[in-house]
Amino acid sequence: MTIQELFGIGLPIIQAPMAGVQTSALAIAVSNAGGLGSLPCAMLTPEVLRAELEAITAQTRQPYNVNFFCHTPPEPDPQRESQWRAALAPYYAEFGIDPASVPAGGGRSPFSAELADLLQAYRPPVVSFHFGLPPPELLQRVKSWGAKVLSSATTVAEARWLEANGADAVIAQGLEAGGHRGIFLGDDLTTQIGTMALLPQVVRAVRIPVIAAGGIADAQGVKAALALGAAGVQVGTSYLLCPEATTTALHRAALQSGRAEHTALTNLITGRPARGILNRLMKELGPLSAAPPAFPLATAALAPLKAAAEQLGRDDFSTLWSGQNASGCREVPAAELTRVLAAF
Amino acid sequence: MTIQELFGIGLPIIQAPMAGVQTSALAIAVSNAGGLGSLPCAMLTPEVLRAELEAITAQTRQPYNVNFFCHTPPEPDPQRESQWRAALAPYYAEFGIDPASVPAGGGRSPFSAELADLLQAYRPPVVSFHFGLPPPELLQRVKSWGAKVLSSATTVAEARWLEANGADAVIAQGLEAGGHRGIFLGDDLTTQIGTMALLPQVVRAVRIPVIAAGGIADAQGVKAALALGAAGVQVGTSYLLCPEATTTALHRAALQSGRAEHTALTNLITGRPARGILNRLMKELGPLSAAPPAFPLATAALAPLKAAAEQLGRDDFSTLWSGQNASGCREVPAAELTRVLAAF
Repeated sequence: MTIQELFGIGLPIIQAPMAGVQTSALAIAVSNAGGLGSLPCAMLTPEVLRAELEAITAQTRQPYNVNFFCHTPPEPDPQRESQWRAALAPYYAEFGIDPASVPAGGGRSPFSAELADLLQAYRPPVVSFHFGLPPPELLQRVKSWGAKVLSSATTVAEARWLEANGADAVIAQGLEAGGHRGIFLGDDLTTQIGTMALLPQVVRAVRIPVIAAGGIADAQGVKAALALGAAGVQVGTSYLLCPEATTTALHRAALQSGRAEHTALTNLITGRPARGILNRLMKELGPLSAAPPAFPLATAALAPLKAAAEQLGRDDFSTLWSGQNASGCREVPAAELTRVLAAF
Repeated sequence: MTIQELFGIGLPIIQAPMAGVQTSALAIAVSNAGGLGSLPCAMLTPEVLRAELEAITAQTRQPYNVNFFCHTPPEPDPQRESQWRAALAPYYAEFGIDPASVPAGGGRSPFSAELADLLQAYRPPVVSFHFGLPPPELLQRVKSWGAKVLSSATTVAEARWLEANGADAVIAQGLEAGGHRGIFLGDDLTTQIGTMALLPQVVRAVRIPVIAAGGIADAQGVKAALALGAAGVQVGTSYLLCPEATTTALHRAALQSGRAEHTALTNLITGRPARGILNRLMKELGPLSAAPPAFPLATAALAPLKAAAEQLGRDDFSTLWSGQNASGCREVPAAELTRVLAAF
C-alpha cells in the first residue's frame, strides 16, 4: 500500500516535522500541494498548539500530520546538571553570563492525556511519534478518532516493535537523517545504519507500509527509495530554505555554505543524539559527550549562550539541524518543492 | 557513461575486492558471468599474485579488476606497539600465549614499482585502489597499458581529489559498506556519510562515472543506485556465502545469524576503521580504540589470539567484515548471484 492510499493524499511525500524551524505555515503549504504536511508539536504550549490546529484546519482541507515526542521525562539529576554547567562555565565567562541566572530544565514535553484531549477536538488524520509510541491507553485514544499512527524506526528491531505495538506505518529513519535520531530500543549508536541498508531490511521485516527517511533530497532520491520498496518518503532538510520555514538566517547561511557537507550526531543540544551542521560547541566539546544531562534537560543551560552568540551574528551554540544531504535545499515555495520531489 | 561501456562488460555489477575471503576463483566466476570480478591483492606475495593472474587469464577472457592498497607504511612505534600488547595482555594470558613469541608487524603492503612490473606482463584491464591513489609515476605506469583506474571516495572532497588526480571512475563508498573505509583525506569519521546522501552529491560533483557501494545487496538496491545517478554498483557482502568465496565457516555462520544485523566500524583488526560484525574484541576494547598501532601494524599481535580462539570454534578475535546489509547473502554460485543482482 502506498502512502497516497494510506493517507488519501496525491503525492508520496511527507514533509518531516521539524521542531524549531517551522510552524503550521509549512505544513499547510505542503498539504495543499498534495503531500502530507507535518506540524512538530514537541515544543508547543497547549495554547499555541490549539492556535496552530485552528490555522491548519482553516487553511487546508487536505490530510495533515501532527508530531509528538514520547520520551519518559527524566528525574533531574543535580550532579549531572552541575557537570553540564561546569563544561559550559568557560563559555558563560566568555559571554559575560552569570551562571546563577540560568534556569535548569528542558523545552520538550512528551505526549500526554491533556494533549490527547486537545487533539481530539480536531481529529488530526495522521499522528506521528518520535522515540517509540505513547502508552497503550494514549495510543488507543489517538486511534479512536481514526488517526493513522506513525513512528520512526532506526533498526529492524525497532520496526518490528512498532508494528507489534500498533503503528499503522513505520518510518525507516536512516543514519543520514537530520535532527533527532528516533532510536528508542537501547542507545548504542553503532546500531544506527544508512538508509540504503535499513530501508530494504525493514521492508522485508514488517507488513505495514514503510516510509523512507534520511538522505532523500530530490526526485531521484524519491525514485530510489520507492525502488527499495518504500511506500513513500519523508523529507526534511530540503524544506529548510523554503520561505514558509522559520529557519533562522544563521541556519540558512550554514545550509547554503560548504559547512553543510559536514554534519555530525551530537547530544550537546538536547541530551539525545541529533544530526546537525557542526557548530563551535560541537567542535569543542563533542560532538558526542558525557557532559550533558538526560534529554531534554541539556537545553536550558545553552539558551543564554545561544542567544548571546546569535546577537553577535555567530552560530557558536545554535541548533543547525541538517541531514547528510543538504543538496536539495532550494529557496522556493514549499508547494513547488513538493511537486519537484514527486516529479521523478 | 555506464560501467558496461567503460569496462566493456555486460552487467553493471562490480564484485568488490575482499582481501582475506576470496581468491581468483570468485573474480573469475563473476567476470565470466558478465560482471567485473575483482582480485584483492593487498595481502598477496608477488609469487601468489603472479599465480592468481595466471589463473585469471587462463580461465576468463573477460575484463577483470585487480585491487591494491596505497597507504604509506608507518614507522613502527615501539611505544604504541607496547601499548597495544598491554591491551591484549589479558587475552594472551587467557589463551596461554607467550607474548614474547608474537612478532610485530602488519600483513598489508602498498602498491609498488615491483608490483607494477609484475602487473605489466598481464596488463589487467582495470586496477582499483583503496586509500587514495599511488604516486603519479606509479599511476602513470598502470595507465600506460590502458588500464582503467578506480578508487574509493568516502566524501565529496575525496571524489573531487580522485578526479583531479587521474581516476577514470570513482567509487562512492557509503558508510554502510563492509571492510575498510577508503577514507584518505583526514581521519574524522563524522565525515563519513550514507550511500543515499553520498552518491547523489558525488554524482553532482564530478564528471567521471560514479560507482555506488555500501548497503547494496539485491536487484532493488542496484536499481535504486542507478536511479541516483550511479554508472554501476560495487557489491561485496552479498558474495560472502558463494561457494567460490573462501569465507571461513565461523564468518559464514555469523553472516547467517541475527548478529549480522549489528556491525560497527572498528580499528582493532588492522589499525584503520573497517566495518564488521561485532566480535568479542570489538565489544570489550572498542569497537574504536586508541590502543592499536597505525595501519596495518595491529595485525600481527592479534594473529595468535585469532588462531587460538578459532581452534576452539570461537570468533572472539576473527575478522568478520560485513556491510550493514547482509540480507542479500545467498549460498549460490557467484555467477547466479551476479545475474540476480542485475535482474532489476
